[in-house]
Amino acid sequence: MGKNTRSSSKIFLNEKDIPNKWYNIMADLPTPMDPPISPFTGNSVTFDEMKALFPPQLIEQEMSGERWIDIPDKVMELLSLWRPTPLIRAKRFEKALGVKSKIYFKYEGTSPAGSHKPNTAIAQAYYNKINGINRLTTETGAGQWGSALSVACKMLDMQCRVYMVKVSYNQKPYRKSFMRMFDAEVIPSPSEYTNAGRDMLKRNPNSNGSLGLAISEAVEEAVGRKDTNYALGSVLNHVVLHQTVIGLETQKQFDLIGEYPDKIFACSGGGSNFGGIATPFLKEKLDGRDIEAVAVEPASCPTLTKGEFAYDYGDVAKLTPIMKMYTLGHDFEPPAIHAGGLRYHGESPIVSHLYKNGLIDAQNVHQSDIFRYGILFAQTEGIVPAPESAHAIAATALEAEKNREEGIEKTLLFCLSGHGFFDMSAYDAYLDGKLEDYEYPEQEIKKSLDHLPKV
Amino acid sequence: MGKNTRSSSKIFLNEKDIPNKWYNIMADLPTPMDPPISPFTGNSVTFDEMKALFPPQLIEQEMSGERWIDIPDKVMELLSLWRPTPLIRAKRFEKALGVKSKIYFKYEGTSPAGSHKPNTAIAQAYYNKINGINRLTTETGAGQWGSALSVACKMLDMQCRVYMVKVSYNQKPYRKSFMRMFDAEVIPSPSEYTNAGRDMLKRNPNSNGSLGLAISEAVEEAVGRKDTNYALGSVLNHVVLHQTVIGLETQKQFDLIGEYPDKIFACSGGGSNFGGIATPFLKEKLDGRDIEAVAVEPASCPTLTKGEFAYDYGDVAKLTPIMKMYTLGHDFEPPAIHAGGLRYHGESPIVSHLYKNGLIDAQNVHQSDIFRYGILFAQTEGIVPAPESAHAIAATALEAEKNREEGIEKTLLFCLSGHGFFDMSAYDAYLDGKLEDYEYPEQEIKKSLDHLPKV
Repeated sequence: MGKNTRSSSKIFLNEKDIPNKWYNIMADLPTPMDPPISPFTGNSVTFDEMKALFPPQLIEQEMSGERWIDIPDKVMELLSLWRPTPLIRAKRFEKALGVKSKIYFKYEGTSPAGSHKPNTAIAQAYYNKINGINRLTTETGAGQWGSALSVACKMLDMQCRVYMVKVSYNQKPYRKSFMRMFDAEVIPSPSEYTNAGRDMLKRNPNSNGSLGLAISEAVEEAVGRKDTNYALGSVLNHVVLHQTVIGLETQKQFDLIGEYPDKIFACSGGGSNFGGIATPFLKEKLDGRDIEAVAVEPASCPTLTKGEFAYDYGDVAKLTPIMKMYTLGHDFEPPAIHAGGLRYHGESPIVSHLYKNGLIDAQNVHQSDIFRYGILFAQTEGIVPAPESAHAIAATALEAEKNREEGIEKTLLFCLSGHGFFDMSAYDAYLDGKLEDYEYPEQEIKKSLDHLPKV
Repeated sequence: MGKNTRSSSKIFLNEKDIPNKWYNIMADLPTPMDPPISPFTGNSVTFDEMKALFPPQLIEQEMSGERWIDIPDKVMELLSLWRPTPLIRAKRFEKALGVKSKIYFKYEGTSPAGSHKPNTAIAQAYYNKINGINRLTTETGAGQWGSALSVACKMLDMQCRVYMVKVSYNQKPYRKSFMRMFDAEVIPSPSEYTNAGRDMLKRNPNSNGSLGLAISEAVEEAVGRKDTNYALGSVLNHVVLHQTVIGLETQKQFDLIGEYPDKIFACSGGGSNFGGIATPFLKEKLDGRDIEAVAVEPASCPTLTKGEFAYDYGDVAKLTPIMKMYTLGHDFEPPAIHAGGLRYHGESPIVSHLYKNGLIDAQNVHQSDIFRYGILFAQTEGIVPAPESAHAIAATALEAEKNREEGIEKTLLFCLSGHGFFDMSAYDAYLDGKLEDYEYPEQEIKKSLDHLPKV
């Protein structure tokens, strides 16, 4: 309460400090990544095959070995609506935990959609726009990615159709309202618009839908329409690339205060949030700096910590390229008791490659810790975290407590990837005692891993 | 899109620039304000009478003639969790409107509760705490103020009971979840806890409640319990005082860029948001500077523009002091078609006095403009405004368009008092065509004004 707690906790940058290049860690990997395979030909996916879904610049970025890639002026202009985002020291959270390690967080929740997702949505919409594509399709589960793409399309005067998993469409009406406010067309999936949707509705008219099926619907429509492309919110290399503005800004902020993180935590579902904050720091690790990065995932969907590094499909319907990644099997589904996002069976190929090569660590956390530390963070720092982001909070808090037991003091950093204002029902479920811890049984994971494609 | 739009739009301050004194315009008023009257004695309310509800420091501030009042260190520490807030130039909104006047907004939505309300909630909780009061009661309608006081009490290790109007309690579950996350006790009003509540439930077991009744319940409980005080989120002088951090920061931000606003807009329900941004600028107006300030209210609850400057009760149950203010009559209720907040029948005595004396202007706006401009603002600037704040957006946009017609260019400022993430259902109602414009009929206002107390 004295002078100590009154020293500045928030480190702001100016708009001129927004990075004007993305960092591409593929340029610095000690060993090359395995290429994606076409599910139709069994060979490496070609540039032309990807053109059915993506504009050429994004395909180039997907395959690029360039270390730094210029961010276009128009993308910079739109990012600057909310960037640079603040780096904040969580002094009251440290005090409540009773730890001496310093805890910093990079806060991405001030974006239009409330998370890091618009960093790539703006870029993806822009590259489509300059190639004459004025319409995008995508899928969304809880609604974060659909919201981000809706905002991006509106700001670039494009149309957007979002296939939203039907159970979320019915249970999360405010995310739907948000997308509607930005003139997006939100379709509950399964729908009558696609073969994949119609097939499912024939088999089960009451289907609640799934993320895998929504991906299939969005991809099928984009493949079938010349005026329409598809956009994905995570997993792919170009998505991780666009998110590196997070880590690059954070490095400038630590430079300003003359500190440096010893260990970085970020939640990881498809991996773009983790890759976005971590890869610029991993460049320094590859240059010899002593720094650790930990991808944090749910114990009920433990892709890196319990999955296999193998070629697998990106979706249930087997329409996407087969990618080399950590996976729980493309037909894996986390149990209903699992709250929040991070439900993806796979993991970004880049993040998978980094983990396989020992450049990063991974850790899974239980729901009781996620919500307990998430609420403590809200109560002390005044920001309600998205349940996804609370995974990183929990892992950071557990580390700080371990540091205390070991009598050491570290500088810890986590990415607060988004706010939780649209996720209050998950907090209600926790406070009502309806969320239990659940560790996915290894034998069940082995079963879904039996279905990996032969490549 | 060129260099012009890339120049910095966001003006940040450092934490050391958070004002360490509040500005009290009562010190500079050309004519004194009329005192509040006790509803029980018919005389001016005494210090001792107010002690049943408030700690001495707040009563002193309520009556103070000091120009500058120190902000305690602990309050500064907690305000610094989210302050200073940004001043932002809405360039894309200007462009979409096709106007040449510059539009700046001060954004208060980054606070823990998502609005300007915590600026005073923290201060009020603090003064109670240092007087040994560890429990506060209050009322909330839509939930903004209840959320703010819940956060403040949790951060100061106090208990908080919020009487929430029952219709909102049932219709806005996420605001309730938010307060619960900060360990507040949220009680649907009318309740069985108070005489006022029990009386209402006897008369009408299915009562939906009202803000007036919720105030009565919170006040009754605080009067009856020695360990409990009451906190109010607007109207009173000390609340307006605490909100002046908004205007004082904004002045520093304009100094930084060498500009100055010609005209300021802020929505006004109880008046603390308007008073908070406007009064520091009005000090300069009193010193001779050419500046206008406009309080913006709904056409369906037109307190300043259609009400009477008279002594009236602050609540329906006639428990609060009788205050000299613009009022529509204490039993006035805006029609059900009215969306969002700003439903209060009265107005802050300070703001009323300023208006009566010609120091500020007032304007009422229709729902169609509020939501139309609110959505355009979200689509261009990437921030979903609270419907209350969208009143100020609409008035500013209308002014900028008028400037264009008149061939003049002004620098306009509005206070974006909060985000609308908890208000998506109001936007849905607008997009569904369910909100109509409604001008409250003058003869109805005359009827409720017939019930003013004789003082």
